[in-house]
Amino acid sequence: MTQATKTLADQVRQGDRRALAKAITLVESTRDDHRQQTAELLETLIPDAGNSIRIGISGAPGVGKSTFIEVLGSHLIQLGHSVAVLAVDPSSAVTGGSILGDKTRMETLAFAEKAFVRPSPAGSTLGGVARRTRESMLVCEAAGFDIILVETVGVGQSETAVADMTDMFLLLLLPAGGDELQGIKRGIMELADLILVNKADGDQVALAALTMGDYRSAVQFLASRFDDWQTPVMSCSSINDEGIVEVWGQVDAFKEILSKTGQLQQRRAEQAKAWMWSEMTESLVADLKADERIRSLVPDIESAVLAGELPATVAAQRVLNLYKDR
Amino acid sequence: MTQATKTLADQVRQGDRRALAKAITLVESTRDDHRQQTAELLETLIPDAGNSIRIGISGAPGVGKSTFIEVLGSHLIQLGHSVAVLAVDPSSAVTGGSILGDKTRMETLAFAEKAFVRPSPAGSTLGGVARRTRESMLVCEAAGFDIILVETVGVGQSETAVADMTDMFLLLLLPAGGDELQGIKRGIMELADLILVNKADGDQVALAALTMGDYRSAVQFLASRFDDWQTPVMSCSSINDEGIVEVWGQVDAFKEILSKTGQLQQRRAEQAKAWMWSEMTESLVADLKADERIRSLVPDIESAVLAGELPATVAAQRVLNLYKDR
Repeated sequence: MTQATKTLADQVRQGDRRALAKAITLVESTRDDHRQQTAELLETLIPDAGNSIRIGISGAPGVGKSTFIEVLGSHLIQLGHSVAVLAVDPSSAVTGGSILGDKTRMETLAFAEKAFVRPSPAGSTLGGVARRTRESMLVCEAAGFDIILVETVGVGQSETAVADMTDMFLLLLLPAGGDELQGIKRGIMELADLILVNKADGDQVALAALTMGDYRSAVQFLASRFDDWQTPVMSCSSINDEGIVEVWGQVDAFKEILSKTGQLQQRRAEQAKAWMWSEMTESLVADLKADERIRSLVPDIESAVLAGELPATVAAQRVLNLYKDR
Repeated sequence: MTQATKTLADQVRQGDRRALAKAITLVESTRDDHRQQTAELLETLIPDAGNSIRIGISGAPGVGKSTFIEVLGSHLIQLGHSVAVLAVDPSSAVTGGSILGDKTRMETLAFAEKAFVRPSPAGSTLGGVARRTRESMLVCEAAGFDIILVETVGVGQSETAVADMTDMFLLLLLPAGGDELQGIKRGIMELADLILVNKADGDQVALAALTMGDYRSAVQFLASRFDDWQTPVMSCSSINDEGIVEVWGQVDAFKEILSKTGQLQQRRAEQAKAWMWSEMTESLVADLKADERIRSLVPDIESAVLAGELPATVAAQRVLNLYKDR
């Protein structure tokens, strides 16, 4: 390992903010030499990582995720915690923007000493963004942050990715009648360890109560992700700072119960193992797709499969043989 | 292609039952030379495949899947259809048995001229069982069967596999109160294009009606898998042959609506493409895992990852480099 990487690791461990930012920039880089340095850095830091509660926060655009995170985060800092906010937002690769890019939406946190807010890295694939977020999480933990909040805007499969890298998954909803709820993406509700009806304020209070009732009956039909934990449904108002303390109370309860039964540790171990294998699989497929002859062949094969002229298994075998006979 | 394979293909196309059984036995074999013959066979048959409606049927053990399939299948044969019944049951690999193995549960179908009942192949992995079921489906279609029913016992991820290889997914339930419904596996309800409360007979009729109501309110919260199709919730009694005709009416409506909008064709194309890539990925990983040095290395690496001593990405990279430097 280079001296520079070693120094960077030491500075991160000491909680040096600029070193932390620098380390995460390194983690986010796709340059081969940077990936190599990142590997060394992560291997050095990992003994100091893991001492945090990792919380995924999802919800449709407009549900008020940023304000919620701002208020929750400020509350946690007052309790003496240090809070890192990361984001998984593959769409930022397209838009070039980021769900956390607009720091003004998180003024307090963005500039608080005990907080660290990092926008979603631009990444072409969800897998790429997710990997870098997982790695950034380790770096933040090594830097001493004991609470990691991972925001996702909830496009496509990003919630699943976030649920797979966090201990607990929060789903934010708006006060809304049953019919309007249909837009919720398939399977997201099942990921939620805590369902939160946000914006329960002003003339929305009554509607929020109705929404809570609807979801409480709905979650009955869903198997909970953990033994001894049935997904609670609560409401809060971020702008009025109402219900936030109660939300954190549930997070504490969740952490205590699942730590006691060992489910939390088991879940993290499973996540790490699954992550390793998905990393390997993704890289393998990427390597295959990078093969010149295969790249030139795949379009024809795919269209033959789509046209129902070539069985998928036969097509797959052909490509594989090409790859292995390199 | 060998003459034998060509002959077999011709006999299958002519609807020769013994040839069909022989072809599926070939499809189910894992022997390399058999896999090669299978590839040739499928490539010959695929132009004649695809002319069926593929229906996945899932439900917990004891819900009455076999009786339902027996009654539905007999009804369809009377309507002039020919029905092939396949099964995806990875557990049969363990038990050695099969969910459709007990033919006596399907006496009419098992011996009907226009029906073909095939137990789940013994397979070590769900992927393997699923692949052979997909391939058997093509063979049955080439043999002229216009309705394919794929039964799954609903263990682990088998429902997802079946939903990914069929046009429509039926979920069978028992009449039961809300509390007892919690056992339903995460995400299965979202896969359902039609929810069916079976055993709505005798003193269960009232309870079945309640169950229907519960699920009708529950499905409101789930996004439908297709535009223009909201999952209906119905009840039926297989033993009294009540509601079966209505069920098929819904299947017809589903097929008509989704064919009109082109969603059915699009879904099949996507399934074929996804199948091709998952085939490729699985085979690649299998090839990697078969590597001697990697096999001896993986346990240590995995335990280091599980212990939090080695970052998953670093571990993955190490294994990959070993594989590529062969």
